Amino acid sequence: MAKFITIGERLSTTAPSVNKAFTERDPEPILKRAKQQLDAGAVYLDVNIGPAENDGEDLMKWAVKLLQENFDNVPLALDTSNKKAIEAGISVYNRSKGKPIVNSADAGGRIENIDLAAANDAIVIALCSADGIAADNDERMMHCQNMLERGMGLGMDPSDLWFDPLFLVVKGMQEKQMEVLEAIKMFSDMGLNSTGGLSNNSNGMPKNIRPIMDSALVAMAMMQGLTSAIVNPNDLRLMETIKSCDVFKGNTLYADSYLEL
Amino acid sequence: MAKFITIGERLSTTAPSVNKAFTERDPEPILKRAKQQLDAGAVYLDVNIGPAENDGEDLMKWAVKLLQENFDNVPLALDTSNKKAIEAGISVYNRSKGKPIVNSADAGGRIENIDLAAANDAIVIALCSADGIAADNDERMMHCQNMLERGMGLGMDPSDLWFDPLFLVVKGMQEKQMEVLEAIKMFSDMGLNSTGGLSNNSNGMPKNIRPIMDSALVAMAMMQGLTSAIVNPNDLRLMETIKSCDVFKGNTLYADSYLEL
Repeated sequence: MAKFITIGERLSTTAPSVNKAFTERDPEPILKRAKQQLDAGAVYLDVNIGPAENDGEDLMKWAVKLLQENFDNVPLALDTSNKKAIEAGISVYNRSKGKPIVNSADAGGRIENIDLAAANDAIVIALCSADGIAADNDERMMHCQNMLERGMGLGMDPSDLWFDPLFLVVKGMQEKQMEVLEAIKMFSDMGLNSTGGLSNNSNGMPKNIRPIMDSALVAMAMMQGLTSAIVNPNDLRLMETIKSCDVFKGNTLYADSYLEL
Repeated sequence: MAKFITIGERLSTTAPSVNKAFTERDPEPILKRAKQQLDAGAVYLDVNIGPAENDGEDLMKWAVKLLQENFDNVPLALDTSNKKAIEAGISVYNRSKGKPIVNSADAGGRIENIDLAAANDAIVIALCSADGIAADNDERMMHCQNMLERGMGLGMDPSDLWFDPLFLVVKGMQEKQMEVLEAIKMFSDMGLNSTGGLSNNSNGMPKNIRPIMDSALVAMAMMQGLTSAIVNPNDLRLMETIKSCDVFKGNTLYADSYLEL
């Protein structure tokens, strides 16, 4: 099996300093956060520019070039609801370290992002929901099947659809947690790749608890066959856990120095 | 599902200070280690008196009484190859907090410890090996089946056989790790309880790495349905992980204070 793929989530307009830097096209704060994440072992970096309705195309091109020029063509996930901005980003994207990821499609109003990924030979994160959270795994797998068929019908390799079960917050939806984990197992049994924003589980919890919950969940999810996650790579405990699970799964050879790799 | 059951492993003759205290019938070091483990959340305490060929019966009785009198009838795992010592321990054991655990039977030379558990209405740890480590899961499950049939034939409830897949050391047997985890899933699918000394995986690793590997493994194993483990409860990271997995599995209700419970 391939090593688990981490997608660093810290370049996002939801962080005020990043939002400001994107708006002002100020490279320094962006490069600093990118370096922190890559130094910590992130494989991909997510570039979340928000809706970016006015200048999304220009902004995404600027960000893709900035990051790839400074970090040896680091592979990127292009994260915005502005489709033209994603296309613009891909038009300047260097694929030598990995295909771009379109973040994201769903089985509802955003299903056309699968077409966008197919047309651009990109990976797409395929969220198994349509209008709101899936009621159960029957619905999740129906969405999965629909998106898989759409992508394959457009010539995509199934491995380029990364299915996201949508991790749910424990506070309020504790009884749904095992269902999400079972969905990951279903993806895995079908030979499909998967991903998701797993720290969503610990939303609203005290700050000291979140890394504990997140790392327990990532190990459980990796046991179920999760192949990727959108994470904060500067959460040391989380990254240590991912590396350890890769050892148990035989995705990487154990050496006493495995945590530094 | 029931909460995960931790069996504290620190009262063992393999620790020189404990060995000395057992030999000299010195209560203080024993009580101190017992309290440390119980304060950290251990449910059962393992009492490993070694082979104890000369005075095992007297020693086990002394240890059982000492621990149960001082810690409100704490439930215990009686751990020795001396069968008479186990029987002596059970003869003075108070069951109000849980049945005694016989540690352990296997499918080879120690299979009669199942008979001992059956005769004494005890739980038994049933190691799925006979002469050396099982070659594969076919062999593990053959041993499991044999021990299950023997116990049930003697009137035991299947839930009182806790099957131990035998956790293997990563350094040297990395390629066997997923097989052990799959065995746990097989026990779980059969509705059986399971346990094991999971820190065996990290034997020979640097000290700072062991809690990282152990906690990643316990989360993976709990995802597979492991219901108990023999652990060092004073490994904070491990215990935090177990409590977190119990939350995801719905074995305990989430509260912001769940780590203190």
